Amino acid sequence: MTDTATTTTELYSPARFGVGARFSLQPMTTDFVPVILGALAAADASRLTFTTDDVSTHVAGAEADVLRYLTDVIATAARTGAHTVAHVLLSRGCPGEVSCELGDVAASAPAQLPPIPATGLKASAHWSLYPLIDGRATVAGDSASIDHMRPILDAIEGAKARGTFTRSEHFATRLDGDLADVIGTVGEAWVSVGRTVPHVVTHVTISLNSPSVTR
Amino acid sequence: MTDTATTTTELYSPARFGVGARFSLQPMTTDFVPVILGALAAADASRLTFTTDDVSTHVAGAEADVLRYLTDVIATAARTGAHTVAHVLLSRGCPGEVSCELGDVAASAPAQLPPIPATGLKASAHWSLYPLIDGRATVAGDSASIDHMRPILDAIEGAKARGTFTRSEHFATRLDGDLADVIGTVGEAWVSVGRTVPHVVTHVTISLNSPSVTR
Repeated sequence: MTDTATTTTELYSPARFGVGARFSLQPMTTDFVPVILGALAAADASRLTFTTDDVSTHVAGAEADVLRYLTDVIATAARTGAHTVAHVLLSRGCPGEVSCELGDVAASAPAQLPPIPATGLKASAHWSLYPLIDGRATVAGDSASIDHMRPILDAIEGAKARGTFTRSEHFATRLDGDLADVIGTVGEAWVSVGRTVPHVVTHVTISLNSPSVTR
Repeated sequence: MTDTATTTTELYSPARFGVGARFSLQPMTTDFVPVILGALAAADASRLTFTTDDVSTHVAGAEADVLRYLTDVIATAARTGAHTVAHVLLSRGCPGEVSCELGDVAASAPAQLPPIPATGLKASAHWSLYPLIDGRATVAGDSASIDHMRPILDAIEGAKARGTFTRSEHFATRLDGDLADVIGTVGEAWVSVGRTVPHVVTHVTISLNSPSVTR
Protein backbone atom coordinates (compact mmCIF):
# COMPACT_ATOMS: atom_id res chain seq x y z
CA MET A 1 0.00 0.00 0.00
CA THR A 2 2.90 2.40 0.70
CA ASP A 3 4.10 2.57 -2.91
CA THR A 4 0.64 3.18 -4.31
CA ALA A 5 -0.40 5.67 -1.64
CA THR A 6 1.22 8.61 -3.41
CA THR A 7 -0.24 7.64 -6.76
CA THR A 8 -3.65 7.19 -5.22
CA THR A 9 -3.58 10.62 -3.62
CA GLU A 10 -2.57 12.21 -6.90
CA LEU A 11 -5.36 10.42 -8.74
CA TYR A 12 -8.02 11.20 -6.15
CA SER A 13 -10.78 13.55 -7.12
CA PRO A 14 -14.46 13.48 -6.14
CA ALA A 15 -15.48 13.22 -9.81
CA ARG A 16 -13.15 10.29 -10.47
CA PHE A 17 -14.63 8.44 -7.48
CA GLY A 18 -18.23 9.37 -8.30
CA VAL A 19 -18.67 11.17 -4.97
CA GLY A 20 -22.18 12.43 -4.43
CA ALA A 21 -25.59 12.17 -2.85
CA ARG A 22 -29.14 11.32 -3.87
CA PHE A 23 -31.76 12.87 -1.63
CA SER A 24 -35.46 13.56 -1.28
CA LEU A 25 -36.99 16.15 1.04
CA GLN A 26 -40.50 15.79 2.44
CA PRO A 27 -41.96 18.67 4.45
CA MET A 28 -45.27 17.26 5.71
CA THR A 29 -47.39 20.27 4.87
CA THR A 30 -49.90 21.02 2.15
CA ASP A 31 -47.60 23.93 1.19
CA PHE A 32 -44.70 21.58 0.47
CA VAL A 33 -43.82 23.09 -2.92
CA PRO A 34 -42.73 26.55 -1.66
CA VAL A 35 -40.99 24.98 1.34
CA ILE A 36 -38.91 22.71 -0.91
CA LEU A 37 -38.15 25.43 -3.45
CA GLY A 38 -37.20 27.86 -0.69
CA ALA A 39 -34.87 25.33 0.91
CA LEU A 40 -33.14 24.55 -2.38
CA ALA A 41 -32.69 28.25 -3.13
CA ALA A 42 -31.17 29.05 0.28
CA ALA A 43 -28.23 26.61 0.10
CA ASP A 44 -24.89 27.23 -1.61
CA ALA A 45 -24.93 25.09 -4.76
CA SER A 46 -22.09 26.89 -6.52
CA ARG A 47 -19.54 24.05 -6.48
CA LEU A 48 -22.04 21.24 -7.10
CA THR A 49 -23.78 19.71 -10.12
CA PHE A 50 -27.35 18.41 -10.07
CA THR A 51 -29.67 16.00 -11.83
CA THR A 52 -33.24 16.14 -10.62
CA ASP A 53 -36.61 14.51 -11.26
CA ASP A 54 -39.86 14.08 -9.34
CA VAL A 55 -38.52 11.32 -7.06
CA SER A 56 -35.12 12.52 -5.87
CA THR A 57 -32.15 14.75 -6.67
CA HIS A 58 -28.60 13.71 -7.45
CA VAL A 59 -25.82 16.05 -6.24
CA ALA A 60 -22.20 15.61 -7.29
CA GLY A 61 -19.21 17.41 -5.81
CA ALA A 62 -16.59 17.31 -3.08
CA GLU A 63 -17.57 15.53 0.15
CA ALA A 64 -17.52 18.66 2.35
CA ASP A 65 -19.58 20.69 -0.15
CA VAL A 66 -22.20 17.94 -0.52
CA LEU A 67 -22.59 17.51 3.25
CA ARG A 68 -22.82 21.26 3.87
CA TYR A 69 -25.39 21.65 1.09
CA LEU A 70 -27.60 18.85 2.46
CA THR A 71 -27.42 20.31 5.97
CA ASP A 72 -28.43 23.77 4.74
CA VAL A 73 -31.31 22.49 2.57
CA ILE A 74 -32.79 20.29 5.30
CA ALA A 75 -32.30 22.99 7.97
CA THR A 76 -34.06 25.63 5.87
CA ALA A 77 -37.07 23.37 5.31
CA ALA A 78 -37.26 22.42 9.01
CA ARG A 79 -37.06 26.07 10.12
CA THR A 80 -40.54 26.58 8.62
CA GLY A 81 -41.73 24.45 11.55
CA ALA A 82 -43.14 21.71 9.32
CA HIS A 83 -42.49 18.10 10.27
CA THR A 84 -39.70 17.44 7.76
CA VAL A 85 -38.27 14.10 6.67
CA ALA A 86 -35.27 13.75 4.37
CA HIS A 87 -33.85 10.60 2.90
CA VAL A 88 -30.19 10.82 1.91
CA LEU A 89 -28.00 8.30 0.07
CA LEU A 90 -24.26 9.11 0.02
CA SER A 91 -22.11 7.16 -2.42
CA ARG A 92 -18.45 7.04 -3.39
CA GLY A 93 -16.41 4.64 -5.49
CA CYS A 94 -18.97 3.89 -8.20
CA PRO A 95 -18.73 6.71 -10.74
CA GLY A 96 -20.83 4.94 -13.39
CA GLU A 97 -24.54 4.44 -13.39
CA VAL A 98 -25.05 0.70 -13.39
CA SER A 99 -21.47 -0.54 -13.58
CA CYS A 100 -18.67 0.60 -11.27
CA GLU A 101 -15.76 1.39 -13.54
CA LEU A 102 -13.19 2.45 -10.96
CA GLY A 103 -10.72 -0.15 -12.19
CA ASP A 104 -7.98 -1.20 -9.81
CA VAL A 105 -7.57 2.19 -8.14
CA ALA A 106 -6.99 1.77 -4.42
CA ALA A 107 -9.41 3.31 -1.93
CA SER A 108 -8.89 7.00 -1.27
CA ALA A 109 -10.75 9.78 0.51
CA PRO A 110 -10.02 13.18 2.06
CA ALA A 111 -7.88 13.05 5.22
CA GLN A 112 -10.44 15.10 7.13
CA LEU A 113 -13.75 16.94 6.77
CA PRO A 114 -14.32 20.49 8.01
CA PRO A 115 -16.88 20.68 10.85
CA ILE A 116 -20.44 21.64 9.88
CA PRO A 117 -21.68 24.62 11.95
CA ALA A 118 -24.45 23.71 14.41
CA THR A 119 -27.97 24.44 13.15
CA GLY A 120 -29.79 24.62 16.51
CA LEU A 121 -32.24 22.04 15.13
CA LYS A 122 -32.78 18.69 16.82
CA ALA A 123 -32.79 15.78 14.40
CA SER A 124 -33.45 12.04 14.75
CA ALA A 125 -32.23 9.51 12.20
CA HIS A 126 -32.03 5.89 11.16
CA TRP A 127 -28.72 5.21 9.48
CA SER A 128 -27.28 2.24 7.53
CA LEU A 129 -23.73 1.92 6.19
CA TYR A 130 -22.72 -0.43 3.36
CA PRO A 131 -19.04 -1.00 2.58
CA LEU A 132 -19.39 -2.80 -0.79
CA ILE A 133 -16.97 -5.11 -2.47
CA ASP A 134 -17.51 -6.16 -6.03
CA GLY A 135 -15.45 -8.05 -8.53
CA ARG A 136 -13.73 -4.94 -9.86
CA ALA A 137 -13.07 -3.03 -6.65
CA THR A 138 -10.19 -4.40 -4.64
CA VAL A 139 -8.08 -3.26 -1.72
CA ALA A 140 -4.43 -4.27 -2.05
CA GLY A 141 -5.57 -6.74 -4.69
CA ASP A 142 -7.46 -8.97 -2.25
CA SER A 143 -11.17 -8.35 -1.89
CA ALA A 144 -11.63 -11.45 0.28
CA SER A 145 -9.51 -9.95 3.06
CA ILE A 146 -12.04 -7.25 3.96
CA ASP A 147 -14.47 -7.83 6.81
CA HIS A 148 -17.53 -5.64 6.13
CA MET A 149 -18.52 -5.52 9.76
CA ARG A 150 -15.27 -3.95 11.03
CA PRO A 151 -15.78 -0.52 9.40
CA ILE A 152 -19.44 -0.54 10.46
CA LEU A 153 -18.49 -1.16 14.09
CA ASP A 154 -15.83 1.58 13.84
CA ALA A 155 -18.47 3.97 12.49
CA ILE A 156 -20.77 3.20 15.41
CA GLU A 157 -17.89 3.90 17.80
CA GLY A 158 -17.45 7.23 15.98
CA ALA A 159 -21.11 8.08 16.59
CA LYS A 160 -20.71 7.20 20.28
CA ALA A 161 -17.64 9.44 20.55
CA ARG A 162 -19.55 12.31 18.93
CA GLY A 163 -22.54 11.79 21.21
CA THR A 164 -25.09 11.17 18.43
CA PHE A 165 -25.47 7.40 18.95
CA THR A 166 -28.78 6.49 20.59
CA ARG A 167 -29.20 2.77 19.97
CA SER A 168 -28.84 -0.10 17.51
CA GLU A 169 -32.01 -1.05 15.65
CA HIS A 170 -32.85 -3.78 13.19
CA PHE A 171 -31.03 -2.88 9.92
CA ALA A 172 -30.06 0.59 11.22
CA THR A 173 -28.47 2.72 13.92
CA ARG A 174 -30.56 5.41 15.62
CA LEU A 175 -28.85 8.81 15.85
CA ASP A 176 -30.06 11.94 17.67
CA GLY A 177 -28.56 15.40 17.96
CA ASP A 178 -28.14 18.70 16.19
CA LEU A 179 -28.84 18.20 12.47
CA ALA A 180 -25.22 19.18 11.72
CA ASP A 181 -23.91 16.51 14.10
CA VAL A 182 -26.21 13.84 12.67
CA ILE A 183 -25.11 14.60 9.09
CA GLY A 184 -21.52 14.99 10.34
CA THR A 185 -21.62 11.50 11.90
CA VAL A 186 -22.92 9.92 8.70
CA GLY A 187 -20.51 11.89 6.48
CA GLU A 188 -17.48 11.16 8.64
CA ALA A 189 -18.18 7.41 8.56
CA TRP A 190 -18.74 7.51 4.80
CA VAL A 191 -15.39 9.22 4.21
CA SER A 192 -13.58 7.18 6.85
CA VAL A 193 -14.64 3.83 5.35
CA GLY A 194 -13.77 5.25 1.93
CA ARG A 195 -10.13 5.40 2.94
CA THR A 196 -9.93 1.58 2.91
CA VAL A 197 -12.94 0.35 0.91
CA PRO A 198 -13.31 1.92 -2.56
CA HIS A 199 -17.10 1.56 -2.95
CA VAL A 200 -19.14 2.75 0.04
CA VAL A 201 -22.83 3.66 0.21
CA THR A 202 -24.72 4.93 3.23
CA HIS A 203 -28.44 5.68 3.64
CA VAL A 204 -30.02 7.84 6.32
CA THR A 205 -33.61 8.86 7.02
CA ILE A 206 -33.64 12.11 9.01
CA SER A 207 -36.70 13.43 10.85
CA LEU A 208 -37.21 16.90 12.38
CA ASN A 209 -40.18 18.46 14.18
CA SER A 210 -41.99 15.16 14.59
CA PRO A 211 -45.12 15.46 16.72
CA SER A 212 -44.38 12.00 18.17
CA VAL A 213 -40.73 11.99 19.24
CA THR A 214 -40.18 8.66 20.98
CA ARG A 215 -36.47 8.74 21.66
CA MET B 1 -30.62 -34.13 7.03
CA THR B 2 -28.90 -36.22 4.37
CA ASP B 3 -27.67 -33.61 1.93
CA THR B 4 -26.86 -29.92 2.20
CA ALA B 5 -29.72 -28.72 0.04
CA THR B 6 -32.33 -30.47 2.16
CA THR B 7 -30.77 -29.20 5.37
CA THR B 8 -30.75 -25.64 4.08
CA THR B 9 -34.40 -25.80 3.07
CA GLU B 10 -35.41 -27.22 6.42
CA LEU B 11 -33.47 -24.51 8.25
CA TYR B 12 -34.96 -21.68 6.20
CA SER B 13 -37.42 -19.44 7.94
CA PRO B 14 -37.93 -15.69 7.62
CA ALA B 15 -37.14 -15.23 11.33
CA ARG B 16 -33.91 -17.19 11.10
CA PHE B 17 -32.79 -15.04 8.16
CA GLY B 18 -33.94 -11.78 9.74
CA VAL B 19 -36.33 -11.08 6.86
CA GLY B 20 -38.07 -7.74 7.16
CA ALA B 21 -38.47 -4.12 6.18
CA ARG B 22 -37.86 -0.70 7.65
CA PHE B 23 -40.07 2.00 6.18
CA SER B 24 -41.22 5.57 6.60
CA LEU B 25 -44.34 7.06 5.02
CA GLN B 26 -44.61 10.76 4.21
CA PRO B 27 -47.95 12.11 2.99
CA MET B 28 -47.20 15.75 2.14
CA THR B 29 -50.23 17.24 3.80
CA THR B 30 -50.76 19.18 6.99
CA ASP B 31 -53.17 16.37 7.99
CA PHE B 32 -50.41 13.76 7.79
CA VAL B 33 -51.19 12.14 11.16
CA PRO B 34 -54.67 10.79 10.29
CA VAL B 35 -53.48 9.78 6.81
CA ILE B 36 -50.62 7.71 8.28
CA LEU B 37 -52.74 6.18 11.04
CA GLY B 38 -55.50 5.36 8.56
CA ALA B 39 -53.04 3.69 6.20
CA LEU B 40 -51.50 1.58 8.96
CA ALA B 41 -54.95 0.52 10.20
CA ALA B 42 -56.16 -0.55 6.74
CA ALA B 43 -53.42 -3.11 6.01
CA ASP B 44 -53.33 -6.73 7.17
CA ALA B 45 -50.69 -6.88 9.91
CA SER B 46 -51.83 -10.19 11.40
CA ARG B 47 -48.76 -12.27 10.48
CA LEU B 48 -46.19 -9.53 11.08
CA THR B 49 -44.36 -8.09 14.08
CA PHE B 50 -43.49 -4.41 14.45
CA THR B 51 -41.08 -2.07 16.21
CA THR B 52 -41.84 1.58 15.68
CA ASP B 53 -40.51 5.00 16.66
CA ASP B 54 -40.82 8.55 15.30
CA VAL B 55 -38.36 7.99 12.41
CA SER B 56 -39.37 4.67 10.85
CA THR B 57 -41.07 1.33 11.44
CA HIS B 58 -39.51 -2.12 11.40
CA VAL B 59 -41.69 -4.97 10.10
CA ALA B 60 -40.68 -8.62 10.42
CA GLY B 61 -42.36 -11.56 8.74
CA ALA B 62 -42.45 -13.69 5.61
CA GLU B 63 -41.40 -11.98 2.36
CA ALA B 64 -44.84 -12.13 0.69
CA ASP B 65 -46.60 -10.79 3.80
CA VAL B 66 -44.14 -7.90 4.20
CA LEU B 67 -44.43 -6.87 0.53
CA ARG B 68 -48.24 -7.07 0.53
CA TYR B 69 -48.41 -5.03 3.77
CA LEU B 70 -46.16 -2.28 2.39
CA THR B 71 -48.19 -2.11 -0.82
CA ASP B 72 -51.47 -1.80 1.09
CA VAL B 73 -50.16 0.85 3.52
CA ILE B 74 -48.67 3.04 0.78
CA ALA B 75 -51.72 2.59 -1.48
CA THR B 76 -54.13 3.62 1.28
CA ALA B 77 -52.15 6.79 2.01
CA ALA B 78 -51.90 7.68 -1.69
CA ARG B 79 -55.65 7.14 -2.24
CA THR B 80 -56.28 10.24 -0.09
CA GLY B 81 -54.84 12.15 -3.06
CA ALA B 82 -51.92 13.58 -1.05
CA HIS B 83 -48.48 13.61 -2.66
CA THR B 84 -47.08 10.58 -0.82
CA VAL B 85 -43.47 9.48 -0.54
CA ALA B 86 -42.37 6.24 1.10
CA HIS B 87 -38.88 5.07 1.79
CA VAL B 88 -38.51 1.31 2.15
CA LEU B 89 -35.47 -0.78 3.15
CA LEU B 90 -35.84 -4.55 2.67
CA SER B 91 -33.27 -6.77 4.36
CA ARG B 92 -32.56 -10.48 4.62
CA GLY B 93 -29.62 -12.46 5.96
CA CYS B 94 -28.70 -10.26 8.91
CA PRO B 95 -30.97 -11.30 11.78
CA GLY B 96 -28.98 -9.41 14.44
CA GLU B 97 -28.93 -5.70 15.03
CA VAL B 98 -25.32 -4.67 14.54
CA SER B 99 -23.69 -8.05 13.90
CA CYS B 100 -24.91 -10.59 11.34
CA GLU B 101 -24.93 -13.90 13.16
CA LEU B 102 -26.16 -16.15 10.38
CA GLY B 103 -23.14 -18.43 10.73
CA ASP B 104 -22.23 -20.60 7.76
CA VAL B 105 -25.79 -21.21 6.62
CA ALA B 106 -26.01 -21.15 2.82
CA ALA B 107 -28.19 -18.59 1.06
CA SER B 108 -31.86 -19.53 0.92
CA ALA B 109 -35.09 -17.81 -0.07
CA PRO B 110 -38.61 -18.74 -1.19
CA ALA B 111 -38.78 -20.32 -4.65
CA GLN B 112 -41.42 -17.81 -5.74
CA LEU B 113 -43.52 -14.89 -4.54
CA PRO B 114 -47.27 -14.62 -5.10
CA PRO B 115 -48.23 -11.71 -7.38
CA ILE B 116 -49.40 -8.51 -5.66
CA PRO B 117 -52.82 -7.39 -6.99
CA ALA B 118 -52.67 -4.18 -9.02
CA THR B 119 -53.55 -1.02 -7.06
CA GLY B 120 -54.51 1.23 -9.96
CA LEU B 121 -52.03 3.79 -8.59
CA LYS B 122 -49.14 5.05 -10.67
CA ALA B 123 -45.84 5.08 -8.75
CA SER B 124 -42.33 6.31 -9.56
CA ALA B 125 -39.28 5.08 -7.70
CA HIS B 126 -35.52 5.24 -7.30
CA TRP B 127 -34.19 1.84 -6.34
CA SER B 128 -30.79 0.54 -5.16
CA LEU B 129 -29.84 -3.10 -4.53
CA TYR B 130 -26.93 -4.20 -2.32
CA PRO B 131 -25.83 -7.85 -2.30
CA LEU B 132 -23.51 -7.78 0.77
CA ILE B 133 -20.68 -10.09 1.62
CA ASP B 134 -19.13 -9.95 5.04
CA GLY B 135 -16.60 -12.10 6.80
CA ARG B 136 -19.22 -14.38 8.30
CA ALA B 137 -21.60 -14.85 5.39
CA THR B 138 -20.28 -17.19 2.75
CA VAL B 139 -21.67 -18.94 -0.28
CA ALA B 140 -20.25 -22.42 -0.77
CA GLY B 141 -17.46 -21.40 1.58
CA ASP B 142 -15.93 -18.89 -0.84
CA SER B 143 -17.00 -15.27 -0.45
CA ALA B 144 -14.40 -14.06 -2.97
CA SER B 145 -16.13 -15.88 -5.82
CA ILE B 146 -19.21 -13.64 -5.78
CA ASP B 147 -19.40 -10.73 -8.22
CA HIS B 148 -21.74 -8.13 -6.72
CA MET B 149 -22.60 -6.60 -10.06
CA ARG B 150 -23.98 -9.81 -11.64
CA PRO B 151 -27.11 -10.05 -9.43
CA ILE B 152 -27.67 -6.30 -9.81
CA LEU B 153 -27.60 -6.58 -13.61
CA ASP B 154 -29.95 -9.58 -13.41
CA ALA B 155 -32.34 -7.56 -11.26
CA ILE B 156 -32.36 -4.74 -13.81
CA GLU B 157 -33.15 -7.29 -16.52
CA GLY B 158 -36.03 -8.47 -14.32
CA ALA B 159 -37.38 -4.92 -14.14
CA LYS B 160 -37.13 -4.60 -17.93
CA ALA B 161 -39.00 -7.89 -18.40
CA ARG B 162 -41.76 -6.67 -16.04
CA GLY B 163 -42.00 -3.30 -17.79
CA THR B 164 -41.16 -1.16 -14.74
CA PHE B 165 -37.63 -0.19 -15.77
CA THR B 166 -37.41 3.43 -16.93
CA ARG B 167 -33.70 4.26 -16.82
CA SER B 168 -30.43 3.94 -14.95
CA GLU B 169 -29.55 6.88 -12.73
CA HIS B 170 -26.53 7.72 -10.61
CA PHE B 171 -26.63 5.30 -7.62
CA ALA B 172 -30.13 4.06 -8.51
CA THR B 173 -32.51 2.63 -11.09
CA ARG B 174 -35.68 4.55 -11.97
CA LEU B 175 -38.85 2.44 -11.95
CA ASP B 176 -42.37 3.46 -13.01
CA GLY B 177 -45.63 1.55 -13.01
CA ASP B 178 -48.51 0.42 -10.87
CA LEU B 179 -47.43 0.58 -7.20
CA ALA B 180 -47.86 -3.21 -6.96
CA ASP B 181 -45.52 -3.74 -9.93
CA VAL B 182 -42.92 -1.35 -8.55
CA ILE B 183 -42.89 -3.08 -5.14
CA GLY B 184 -43.08 -6.46 -6.91
CA THR B 185 -39.97 -5.62 -8.96
CA VAL B 186 -38.00 -4.64 -5.88
CA GLY B 187 -39.26 -7.60 -3.83
CA GLU B 188 -38.60 -10.14 -6.59
CA ALA B 189 -34.99 -8.93 -6.96
CA TRP B 190 -34.49 -8.99 -3.19
CA VAL B 191 -35.69 -12.60 -2.93
CA SER B 192 -33.96 -13.66 -6.13
CA VAL B 193 -30.53 -12.40 -5.01
CA GLY B 194 -31.22 -13.97 -1.62
CA ARG B 195 -31.15 -17.42 -3.23
CA THR B 196 -27.39 -17.07 -3.83
CA VAL B 197 -26.18 -14.27 -1.53
CA PRO B 198 -27.15 -14.65 2.14
CA HIS B 199 -27.14 -10.96 3.13
CA VAL B 200 -29.05 -8.66 0.77
CA VAL B 201 -30.38 -5.16 1.39
CA THR B 202 -32.37 -3.02 -1.01
CA HIS B 203 -33.59 0.58 -0.64
CA VAL B 204 -36.36 2.24 -2.63
CA THR B 205 -37.87 5.71 -2.52
CA ILE B 206 -41.40 5.60 -3.95
CA SER B 207 -43.37 8.70 -4.98
CA LEU B 208 -47.08 8.95 -5.84
CA ASN B 209 -49.28 11.90 -6.81
CA SER B 210 -46.32 14.21 -7.39
CA PRO B 211 -47.34 17.55 -8.88
CA SER B 212 -44.13 17.54 -10.95
CA VAL B 213 -43.90 14.15 -12.65
CA THR B 214 -40.88 14.38 -14.93
CA ARG B 215 -40.67 10.84 -16.26
